[in-house]
Amino acid sequence: MELVLKDKGFTLKGNNRTILDCSENSPLLYVGCGKEDVLMYRGNFKIEDYVTERLPLYPTEVKETARGAEVLFGDKLKAVIDVEKDLCNISFEKLDEKINRFWFRTVSDEKEHIYGCGEQMSYFDLKGRHFPLWTSEPGVGRDKTTYVTWRGDVEGMSGGDYYHTNYPQPTYVSSHKFYVHVQTTAYADFDFRNEDFNELQCWDVPEFIRIESAESFVELLEKETAFFGRQPQLPEWVYNGLIIGAQGGNERSFGIMEKSIDAGVKVAGLWCQDWCGKRVTSFGKRLQWDWHFHDEMYPALPEKIKELHERGIKFLGYINPYLVEGGKLFEEGKKKDVFAKKSDGSLYLVDFGEFYCGVIDLTKKEAYDWFKDEVIKKYSIDIGIDGWMADFGEYLPTDDIVLSNGVTPMIEHNHWPALWAKCNYDAVKESGKLGEVVYFMRAGGIGSQKYCTLLWAGDQSVDFTRHDGLCTVICAALSSGMTGCGLNHSDIGGYTSLYDNLRTKEVFLRWAEMAAFTPVMRTHEGNRPDTNFQYYDDEDCVKDLARLTGIYTMISPLMKELVKENSLKGTPVQRPLFLHNEEDERSYSEQFEYLLGENVLVAPVYEEGKEDRTVYLPSEGWIHLWTGKEYGKGEHTVPAKMGDTPVFYKKGSDVVELFEKVRATYGR
Amino acid sequence: MELVLKDKGFTLKGNNRTILDCSENSPLLYVGCGKEDVLMYRGNFKIEDYVTERLPLYPTEVKETARGAEVLFGDKLKAVIDVEKDLCNISFEKLDEKINRFWFRTVSDEKEHIYGCGEQMSYFDLKGRHFPLWTSEPGVGRDKTTYVTWRGDVEGMSGGDYYHTNYPQPTYVSSHKFYVHVQTTAYADFDFRNEDFNELQCWDVPEFIRIESAESFVELLEKETAFFGRQPQLPEWVYNGLIIGAQGGNERSFGIMEKSIDAGVKVAGLWCQDWCGKRVTSFGKRLQWDWHFHDEMYPALPEKIKELHERGIKFLGYINPYLVEGGKLFEEGKKKDVFAKKSDGSLYLVDFGEFYCGVIDLTKKEAYDWFKDEVIKKYSIDIGIDGWMADFGEYLPTDDIVLSNGVTPMIEHNHWPALWAKCNYDAVKESGKLGEVVYFMRAGGIGSQKYCTLLWAGDQSVDFTRHDGLCTVICAALSSGMTGCGLNHSDIGGYTSLYDNLRTKEVFLRWAEMAAFTPVMRTHEGNRPDTNFQYYDDEDCVKDLARLTGIYTMISPLMKELVKENSLKGTPVQRPLFLHNEEDERSYSEQFEYLLGENVLVAPVYEEGKEDRTVYLPSEGWIHLWTGKEYGKGEHTVPAKMGDTPVFYKKGSDVVELFEKVRATYGR
Repeated sequence: MELVLKDKGFTLKGNNRTILDCSENSPLLYVGCGKEDVLMYRGNFKIEDYVTERLPLYPTEVKETARGAEVLFGDKLKAVIDVEKDLCNISFEKLDEKINRFWFRTVSDEKEHIYGCGEQMSYFDLKGRHFPLWTSEPGVGRDKTTYVTWRGDVEGMSGGDYYHTNYPQPTYVSSHKFYVHVQTTAYADFDFRNEDFNELQCWDVPEFIRIESAESFVELLEKETAFFGRQPQLPEWVYNGLIIGAQGGNERSFGIMEKSIDAGVKVAGLWCQDWCGKRVTSFGKRLQWDWHFHDEMYPALPEKIKELHERGIKFLGYINPYLVEGGKLFEEGKKKDVFAKKSDGSLYLVDFGEFYCGVIDLTKKEAYDWFKDEVIKKYSIDIGIDGWMADFGEYLPTDDIVLSNGVTPMIEHNHWPALWAKCNYDAVKESGKLGEVVYFMRAGGIGSQKYCTLLWAGDQSVDFTRHDGLCTVICAALSSGMTGCGLNHSDIGGYTSLYDNLRTKEVFLRWAEMAAFTPVMRTHEGNRPDTNFQYYDDEDCVKDLARLTGIYTMISPLMKELVKENSLKGTPVQRPLFLHNEEDERSYSEQFEYLLGENVLVAPVYEEGKEDRTVYLPSEGWIHLWTGKEYGKGEHTVPAKMGDTPVFYKKGSDVVELFEKVRATYGR
Repeated sequence: MELVLKDKGFTLKGNNRTILDCSENSPLLYVGCGKEDVLMYRGNFKIEDYVTERLPLYPTEVKETARGAEVLFGDKLKAVIDVEKDLCNISFEKLDEKINRFWFRTVSDEKEHIYGCGEQMSYFDLKGRHFPLWTSEPGVGRDKTTYVTWRGDVEGMSGGDYYHTNYPQPTYVSSHKFYVHVQTTAYADFDFRNEDFNELQCWDVPEFIRIESAESFVELLEKETAFFGRQPQLPEWVYNGLIIGAQGGNERSFGIMEKSIDAGVKVAGLWCQDWCGKRVTSFGKRLQWDWHFHDEMYPALPEKIKELHERGIKFLGYINPYLVEGGKLFEEGKKKDVFAKKSDGSLYLVDFGEFYCGVIDLTKKEAYDWFKDEVIKKYSIDIGIDGWMADFGEYLPTDDIVLSNGVTPMIEHNHWPALWAKCNYDAVKESGKLGEVVYFMRAGGIGSQKYCTLLWAGDQSVDFTRHDGLCTVICAALSSGMTGCGLNHSDIGGYTSLYDNLRTKEVFLRWAEMAAFTPVMRTHEGNRPDTNFQYYDDEDCVKDLARLTGIYTMISPLMKELVKENSLKGTPVQRPLFLHNEEDERSYSEQFEYLLGENVLVAPVYEEGKEDRTVYLPSEGWIHLWTGKEYGKGEHTVPAKMGDTPVFYKKGSDVVELFEKVRATYGR
């Protein structure tokens, strides 16, 4: 990178391209004052801002230093710029205490594509839109033109929009091969709507902005994850087959597992989210947020787990960082003073939908340790649980909550998911179980990379809709992979069933056939198990699922290799086409296909009633998995009967043998 | 008013209260730069603003003058302040050409109520909300929680919101007895959400801001309308009874009228909006936008009108400032070059919903005169037409339209309704027909006051909904009365029927019983006449309507007096309770009741399925019209059977005799 100082400004160049331009005609920075208005209802936020001042900043003094420059912007701000090889770091010092809004511009052009910003569900290429970055519920429907979204909005502010995500992060990757990271956990909004520039807003002066470039995207992600940290590898047992989501107590849950095994389903684990008991609300079946096994529903669970282990099957549970009022652990926690408070000193209880919970104050060492040691280790790890959904993290309220570290909730809100991830990580690590236990999270932020063993893409609707259905989990995997989380998976068949939107067999099977080509296969019965399609109620479907678990386990050698690569270099398992096809323009805008490594391309069927799919291939020499037919670069429509997700492998590559075996064994 | 100059600022006081505060700690003004993004679809606008700069302005020089002061705000702006008695005028000069955003603050407090901003349909007291001021379709449903609104939004951006109005105006009245007027036709947004201040935004530096105070509200409105102008009196014939809206050609329209007369309905006029021919679209029955009588549907119309006149009945038509592509007048207009153009010189055609029209360029003298003389006079006035709906005015596009006067459409858009009103006014005046002809408009703005003979409250949904039904026309009348338009009326039964929302007999009758206590009674068949309730299809309803027209004509002496008062002093016919009850706090927030003069209070039933209504009376000594029972100050629930709108008259006042006669004649 090259920093060129001028009398009243500077430019930063990387990859022979101007990335920053700070001059009298083109402000690099704006600062100002604003007053936010934040309304939360059950994890859904309405956030408005009243900006009273927004001032362009112009350099008043530019002083060269050994590694860059110190730039003074009047009496408002000081920036220290360090450049070393392909890395530029700009740290900021606020000189005017009033400033609480910050806008930073990077140079853009009509050819730039933008990726990242955490886990995005609707759009992989972010250029042309703006992305508020605030961890929240992702919304039900997420498309203001759908009935489900409208009902969600009206009944609980929950319809959502294209940018809502559990895992936002103020970091983006440019197709010009650099990334820009803004170090802040304040509310942010990255605006990529302008052709000539991108504008990165945050509601605080960030600690620093980091820009790093590379010569290839693989190298770029390696550099990025060297900074953020990388996800560890998945445990070996994951590749043994399906993780079955079942509920209802020992008899029902284990029964569903046995029935599945009998029908030939390869099973890696049994996941009982209601291991802690259940709670029925108007939303559907929910859980008893008191994180120990439920004596009546799961009697003698530790012994049952032992029996499973003897058969090579794992058991998974569920936790989150809240405790329900009145529960055993809530009472314990209250005595230990582990909960966040209101400003009047009373307990802050959060409404989670017809029940209220205390918020573990993860910024308080004693509370963090109590939850890690006395909850996660004692009640989950120590009874032999091999993994769990580490749910939530998005609900830190901002109205009247006081945290032990004294930081305002507007700053801690986006920090919470990574803190929560670390609490899980520490519990597992201190128990010596890293690499054996897997917990999966939907919430994320800066720092999740090294502390979260696996992402799951959240609570999709049980359908094929464009902004909340099957296709969004592809986008989720691709985008989270651009900010360092290269291990993603999803609830097979989706989760949320509201307003008469019901899961069909088709949705389930299409989702399952895609999941066979992701790092982890896991089912979920959804929020309303009784009224939605369940594979175990349909004999044919169990057989179809069995076949798909066969495919998944058969390709596990490839998957393990990719997971390892992710842990070593930060190259995600599910990769956008452009990652290995940098010269191919169209590869930059495909978000309904992905590469599994360099030599396998997966194009899931994400629409209803289809028997074929049109696929774009970014180069020559691709063999269609199910027909063995070769296809070249360009668009092709291939058959895609149920169960046969369009998959292609590269002619002459080292996966040929493996995929020929898949065709020989599972082709029809 | 008192202007107190300080070293670095000033204050303006009126009625012993600070109205403006300009100091180093409290900026009076902000200026900045923004770039708007305006999308129009059939009169519905989506407007977004990207504000790049917003700078607080502080006085750098304060120079006393004979009548006030000259204040310099650095190199940005100069203000000249003139104060004389109760009037303060601040004119502005922009010193920095870049400035295109302007924010002006007035002092507020927790007790202030705010009214006006043109004709508002949802909220009469504006405090606590902000009001974008941009003439547009008002929306269908206007409430994001209703199904109708959602369908409207999804299918044509037409759902609307609480602030959408045909008639916005950057003028407000404070309950502290002053008004503030911002002289601009640019997009504006008046923000009354803050307790300590109000912030008046406009997208241009306004010519001036005018603040005037008075000792009473009646005096305040008199001063305000002395400035804006006042509506003339209504023609005498209006009070003869109902104006019947009927369509379908001579036979059907005149037939409906005869049937009504036969059943005892008192008739003032017959209004055939399809006098020019009809057009059926997916929205419903619409018109042939070619403003001359339709030879086939209304053969020999001039002769038919003469016959009507001999019977003392008037005939009304319909026009608007657009001409449909291909029509006779369109072709004439094209030859005369009367239409607005695109920047490439071609005709700008506006999509009005499955048909396209040319826009008369009212800023071009020849076009204005042609429309006035060759269209309005020749084809309407000269054939004996006594009035018309002067529809639209809200659709001036802003994307690529070039006007003859060279002013940008972003500035002309809000100016259009008053220009359109003036064109009608001039045609009528030049024909010597002022006081004989009445045209009614829904669009308005600064200047409509003196050029618009009557407002109608637009296209309500045919229902009782809170934001688009019957009750909104009360709010419309009250708010338009606060900015100088004191003559309002509405389509009896509402107009818009979409998405299976159908007019019932109850809606029609409740609306009609309210209309009997407004300046004008007029029916409309609505956009889908065939599927909605029509009074003439129901024998009982015709009789009920006949009774209501009897009441209306019986109280016409009062109505005439009030209409005259409006024309002389700007005191609106329908008045908010506080106008004559300044000391009564609750009177400031009632928007579902109104006064007719000082001594009559009307509280229409605006909800479905009611047989009574709870009414608030602001003082002692009110007689209930239908029972003769006396009620005192406070809340009362009174019977309100269909046909008997709760009406009260003041004991001992000069209306007693008239209203006792109403009870004697029409009481049941």
